[in-house]
Amino acid sequence: MSVKYIVGTNPKTGESLVGEFPISGKEEVNTIMKDAWKAWQEYRDFSGKKKGQFLRTIAEEIEQAEGLVERVMEESGLPEGRVRGERGRTCNQLRLFASLVEEGSWVEATIDKAQQDRQPIPKADIRKMLYPTGPVVVFTASNFPLAFSTAGGDTASALASGNPVVVKAHESHPGTNDIVSKAILRAAEKIGMPEGVFATVYGQGYETGQQLVLHPLTKAVAFTGSLRGGKALYDLAGKRAEPIPVFAEMGSVNPIFILPNKLKANSDGLATQMAQSVNLGVGQFCTNPGILVVLDNEDIPGFTSSLKEAFSQISPSCMLNAGIFDNFEKKKKHILDQEGVQSEYEFNGNGSAPNGRPAVGSVLADQFLKNGDLQEEVFGPFTLLVKCKNQEELLKVARQFEGQLTATIMGQDDEVLAHKELFNILREKVGRLIFNGVPTGVEVCHSMQHGGPFPATTDGRFTSVGTAAIKRFARPLAYQNCPDALLPDELKEANPLGISRVVDGKLEA
Amino acid sequence: MSVKYIVGTNPKTGESLVGEFPISGKEEVNTIMKDAWKAWQEYRDFSGKKKGQFLRTIAEEIEQAEGLVERVMEESGLPEGRVRGERGRTCNQLRLFASLVEEGSWVEATIDKAQQDRQPIPKADIRKMLYPTGPVVVFTASNFPLAFSTAGGDTASALASGNPVVVKAHESHPGTNDIVSKAILRAAEKIGMPEGVFATVYGQGYETGQQLVLHPLTKAVAFTGSLRGGKALYDLAGKRAEPIPVFAEMGSVNPIFILPNKLKANSDGLATQMAQSVNLGVGQFCTNPGILVVLDNEDIPGFTSSLKEAFSQISPSCMLNAGIFDNFEKKKKHILDQEGVQSEYEFNGNGSAPNGRPAVGSVLADQFLKNGDLQEEVFGPFTLLVKCKNQEELLKVARQFEGQLTATIMGQDDEVLAHKELFNILREKVGRLIFNGVPTGVEVCHSMQHGGPFPATTDGRFTSVGTAAIKRFARPLAYQNCPDALLPDELKEANPLGISRVVDGKLEA
Repeated sequence: MSVKYIVGTNPKTGESLVGEFPISGKEEVNTIMKDAWKAWQEYRDFSGKKKGQFLRTIAEEIEQAEGLVERVMEESGLPEGRVRGERGRTCNQLRLFASLVEEGSWVEATIDKAQQDRQPIPKADIRKMLYPTGPVVVFTASNFPLAFSTAGGDTASALASGNPVVVKAHESHPGTNDIVSKAILRAAEKIGMPEGVFATVYGQGYETGQQLVLHPLTKAVAFTGSLRGGKALYDLAGKRAEPIPVFAEMGSVNPIFILPNKLKANSDGLATQMAQSVNLGVGQFCTNPGILVVLDNEDIPGFTSSLKEAFSQISPSCMLNAGIFDNFEKKKKHILDQEGVQSEYEFNGNGSAPNGRPAVGSVLADQFLKNGDLQEEVFGPFTLLVKCKNQEELLKVARQFEGQLTATIMGQDDEVLAHKELFNILREKVGRLIFNGVPTGVEVCHSMQHGGPFPATTDGRFTSVGTAAIKRFARPLAYQNCPDALLPDELKEANPLGISRVVDGKLEA
Repeated sequence: MSVKYIVGTNPKTGESLVGEFPISGKEEVNTIMKDAWKAWQEYRDFSGKKKGQFLRTIAEEIEQAEGLVERVMEESGLPEGRVRGERGRTCNQLRLFASLVEEGSWVEATIDKAQQDRQPIPKADIRKMLYPTGPVVVFTASNFPLAFSTAGGDTASALASGNPVVVKAHESHPGTNDIVSKAILRAAEKIGMPEGVFATVYGQGYETGQQLVLHPLTKAVAFTGSLRGGKALYDLAGKRAEPIPVFAEMGSVNPIFILPNKLKANSDGLATQMAQSVNLGVGQFCTNPGILVVLDNEDIPGFTSSLKEAFSQISPSCMLNAGIFDNFEKKKKHILDQEGVQSEYEFNGNGSAPNGRPAVGSVLADQFLKNGDLQEEVFGPFTLLVKCKNQEELLKVARQFEGQLTATIMGQDDEVLAHKELFNILREKVGRLIFNGVPTGVEVCHSMQHGGPFPATTDGRFTSVGTAAIKRFARPLAYQNCPDALLPDELKEANPLGISRVVDGKLEA
């Protein structure tokens, strides 16, 4: 018999939580997509002010939702401080997108005025701005049950751009999804949004997700999760008659290159900083630094000891769900079992499942260069120290990396400048290049690029964090000789919204 | 035995032209892609001024290239005035992109400055700008042997963005490709560009194109041509281990909706305007209006007569090549043979191959709605008049259209405003919505959107005409806490290039 409900599980106890969330049938999913399409007909033309009001009301409803923090903690095993912080981030994100659309310049209004007397032919009046592309399906992430889930960055940016959203609930936190979805629907009702502007579906396995990606009324897909999951959705979308963009943010090992003078000057401090970043959130961040690259000199044994020491201060903590825990232990073991890999540290206390046991491996670069498996992401509190015998090998290691969300160079001022080639190689590979910091902690701002070349994402031209995330769900639409009364406000001659526009090639701020 | 050379053919005479252009073997293509990659390492960091100088020198070399106009005429059958005009447009395009990169603001520099004292954690300095994505393969179009070919908009925008270009020569004009390629290579040498920054390959059939699309060092593909060709490349790219964007600009029927008052007021004038647009360039434009939609009232017989009369003034002219001619005659016949389609006009003089014989068909909307074939593009001087019995049917026809490069509404001021629903339906379908004009004649400017929802293109979020075309070949790259000396000039604190940037969310023009 097929499963009819999704039930939440407490990863700490393995016990089922209250609430049965019915799996959406084919008919229901079809109706939801049709409703989303219908809602789009109205929603896409709502003013930035109205969409902003909607997003702000969602934030308020989430802040006021009863039992939300508790349910997230129960379903994810995350501590209260983290959950409250993430709720704050989620609401800030919603308000940031509200501000963006209320201000309005994000649509990239571009106007070329008519020149009736131009030779040999008159020039027409053409006005262009971004236009929403249609219903967006959001696949949510387990590791941020709020900030990358039901009302997370994908949903916020898609709603901000003028598109209805259908969220495929994460099986790992169905109760959280239910509370947040209801908050969104309450906000939609309060602000008078068209029915269908937001919906959520529950599914078990691949069936529901497949139907959503293949549905002809789905116009874009956003996903955060594993390489396997993201690439599968990307390939699935490739089978559609009509191509649609799939924005999948997937795995990354976020290498950190620690240059020798920096390491010599502050070996202990660096080891502590690395250990903290690797273990932040039990290593369950997409920007977790899974590989540390160093020059193998007389300072490395001391650094390795400091790293072990720093790791040994950290107790295993609960991972997000049993699947993630199992996967972590399996992948960690797989890496440590590879030829030439030395286990430098493994927590050997009584950490019981699902508490992820932190570990550190090390390997010589020539071995690392021979074995592609060593580049694979281990999702959890693990990092691999790659020791290069010289500068040339260090550059080889850099060149060998696949696409990454981030890479980091730790170095003293002069040695960073002396590593121009490393800088150039890494620029090819990443969405964000960090100096003397850690990749964890992704700032939600205008300049953020959270998205890198494949396999970090399926489309490195876009970001899933920061205001630019809104650009994923819009396309330019040009109006030629359009009567002013029909033009969107953003393009009207009088510029009633007072936004910045490019007019005849000149930016009018 | 396999073919070893491509030879040009004069479509007017069917005779072979001088020049044998060797088909590139697998080894050669591989070497070319490796050289392009190597060139990219250097070229991507060239200043806007230097890239601009390169583009301007290409334009000069093309203007000075001996025998170019004659060769285009011989290979394409296009008249001298058109070829000279197209050469002008091609060089203007190169200079427009030169201006764009010389000015420099196109990179969308976005800066968020550090806040050391922010609570609970300090804010890092993050600076983002567009970065070239790597070697671009360009598949050229037959219908613009200069402006959409070897040094056309795709090549110009890809070079401008900082990417080497490999052009797959069009089999229809190999000699033109040879002359233009040599002009580009002369410019590259004059300006001291790295070897491999530009190359061209010749191929017969699919093999060479396939190798180019699947090559791991190819990072983007641009194509202009048929739906079949473009979709095949798109699907092929989907088989790569690493996904890359494919920007295919494909077919479109560019419907024109003629509203009744407008038609009544100026039936003859409209008929002439329509006939001219349909027959411009022997109908071989991607924005050719292949369908005219009208309300079937007492004015339609007169309008149809006027349309016939206007068409009868037009003599068949040479089409671009024998394949296009054959395809036109076949497709035209296929449409005219469909149930309910009436042939209103067909040139019945002694127009011999490859002179495309203009034709007009008509059909009642209820029949049109039943038969998907009638929406297919007929590439050449043909249009289909679709007669709707009422307003509701007219909207149904609008709704039935697939994605288009353009749609047009012809109407008097008040009736255009009264057709808000038509306006809304068409906005969903197109990249450019035109009022009281014709779709042919695509302005090369900042506000142009030449790209619409599938099947007009594979990615309606981008344009292949106008300055925004450069955005196709770049992705955002963020630098966090990067030393000023390592930052690209566009992001340096002092803004040495004086470009517009968004700093802490505020646009600094």
